[in-house]
Amino acid sequence: MRMRHKPWADDYLAENAHIALASPEQYKGKWHELFGNDHPIHIEVGTGKGSFIAGMGKLHPDINYIGIELFKSVIVTAVDKIKETDVENVKLLNINAETLTDVFAENEIDRVYLNFSDPWPKARHEKRRLTFKTFLERYEHILRPGGELHFKTDNRGLFEYSLKSFSAYGLLLTYVSLDLHEDGLEGNVMTEYEEKFSSMGQPIYRSEVKFPE
Amino acid sequence: MRMRHKPWADDYLAENAHIALASPEQYKGKWHELFGNDHPIHIEVGTGKGSFIAGMGKLHPDINYIGIELFKSVIVTAVDKIKETDVENVKLLNINAETLTDVFAENEIDRVYLNFSDPWPKARHEKRRLTFKTFLERYEHILRPGGELHFKTDNRGLFEYSLKSFSAYGLLLTYVSLDLHEDGLEGNVMTEYEEKFSSMGQPIYRSEVKFPE
Repeated sequence: MRMRHKPWADDYLAENAHIALASPEQYKGKWHELFGNDHPIHIEVGTGKGSFIAGMGKLHPDINYIGIELFKSVIVTAVDKIKETDVENVKLLNINAETLTDVFAENEIDRVYLNFSDPWPKARHEKRRLTFKTFLERYEHILRPGGELHFKTDNRGLFEYSLKSFSAYGLLLTYVSLDLHEDGLEGNVMTEYEEKFSSMGQPIYRSEVKFPE
Repeated sequence: MRMRHKPWADDYLAENAHIALASPEQYKGKWHELFGNDHPIHIEVGTGKGSFIAGMGKLHPDINYIGIELFKSVIVTAVDKIKETDVENVKLLNINAETLTDVFAENEIDRVYLNFSDPWPKARHEKRRLTFKTFLERYEHILRPGGELHFKTDNRGLFEYSLKSFSAYGLLLTYVSLDLHEDGLEGNVMTEYEEKFSSMGQPIYRSEVKFPE
């Protein structure tokens, strides 16, 4: 699905530019102005089809959400989800996560979410994992001091790797569950993947880490 | 089993004082003399019936092992295991883990093993968990700089707690497996509990952390 060419996607995103913002570099340092309030800003890196960010937006009207998704063919579905959910506090950016620091100013973000990120299991692809050191550096740059990264996945290898990567980076592990759905988590909003894998009895792993104050 | 009174245990330990050493404070700072070599010293805190430490002693003749077990009624079985295994490099101490720093000098130990430690699941018993901060302080005191703690358990709650405790203490997580037997680990020696729970399909969690150099 991801790789299929959707020539109509460009037009669709242009029609919905109030949700999927074009040229987001223009808002760097001005995101609170765009939202028209001083609420905290939470971003999701790898938003996929948008269930999580739309659900969170609905659940937390006092938080601003920005979903980042590389694939145009996927983000169009997230646009639909946000329209259906009818939330004003959720925006989408069709950008590469490597450009986060071009789009957000230092300390501008309060929390980063990673949900079911691509595991890139081959050792030679380590640098592409969204919990690799260079990505943690980007998150630290745009997060306020003491900002948090919340991460969930069904992929054991990626979770194990990420715990080590967080530790090597000196992040404080403040929450960890090795079976989220067994433990329960108040206000947990499920992604599409999560519903599928959890219903198959697969444990979902979840962690929260805190960047230095 | 643990709590059953075994009046013969005192006599049995006295008879086997070459394995279950009496008054171990006398060897503080002199453990290499006792072993008669300069090999690294690895301790297991909570040795139980001794399968792990006996197996490790057999597998690694160039390492000295010391198993620590609070319960007399349990350590007698570990004595038998060591006699059966016929290893010279394994000793046992019938002491409370709270007294580790009375028995070992600063930097005297190279590695600490914790295997299937009592989870003490109630919040009010947190201080009794062998990965609680005060225990980490004791391990740090007796470990050489850069010394390691290797920990495995089938208890998810204890493992999650321990990952957070390690992080709060500033330890470097160098290895983690959330399903040890699925991953495989070369030279893994199973404990009695591990054989039982692993054969029931229960995942075994395992981590290695490193104290500051």
